Amino acid sequence: MTTESIIGIVAGVLTGIASLPQLIKLIREKKGKDISPMMLIVLVSGLSLWAYYGILKEDWPIIITNAFSALVNLLILILRQVYRKR
Amino acid sequence: MTTESIIGIVAGVLTGIASLPQLIKLIREKKGKDISPMMLIVLVSGLSLWAYYGILKEDWPIIITNAFSALVNLLILILRQVYRKR
Repeated sequence: MTTESIIGIVAGVLTGIASLPQLIKLIREKKGKDISPMMLIVLVSGLSLWAYYGILKEDWPIIITNAFSALVNLLILILRQVYRKR
Repeated sequence: MTTESIIGIVAGVLTGIASLPQLIKLIREKKGKDISPMMLIVLVSGLSLWAYYGILKEDWPIIITNAFSALVNLLILILRQVYRKR
């Protein structure tokens, strides 16, 4: 594994775990009305495009880490909609 | 400009603007105690590493968009510390 790949994976893990506290908070508290759905839609679109960019460039750290972050934020968006009345 | 660069730039703009509402909210309300400083530190570290990854790969969309996001989140972290007592 090259130095570049290692830096890419560490970078991706750091930006990926930054969304996890929001997901955990949402699962625990089951309240989501303060979260902006528009921003989540923008973020999930951006992260999905990054993953697609990685596919075009055959750049694995970009693909894996952005696909993971997109999934976490999509889950936040879905739970936010489920719990929006609370 | 190649299709790849355009997709990379659009992706970066989307993930970049996703942090702006938090910055605007912080400037307007001057209250920051509910924001987790640890997560901001993780996020800024990750984004800076992405920019460095872009430098290693000579990948301009990666460099510009992650440097911008790192700067926005660093500003959020600084203002959060300034307004933490309110």
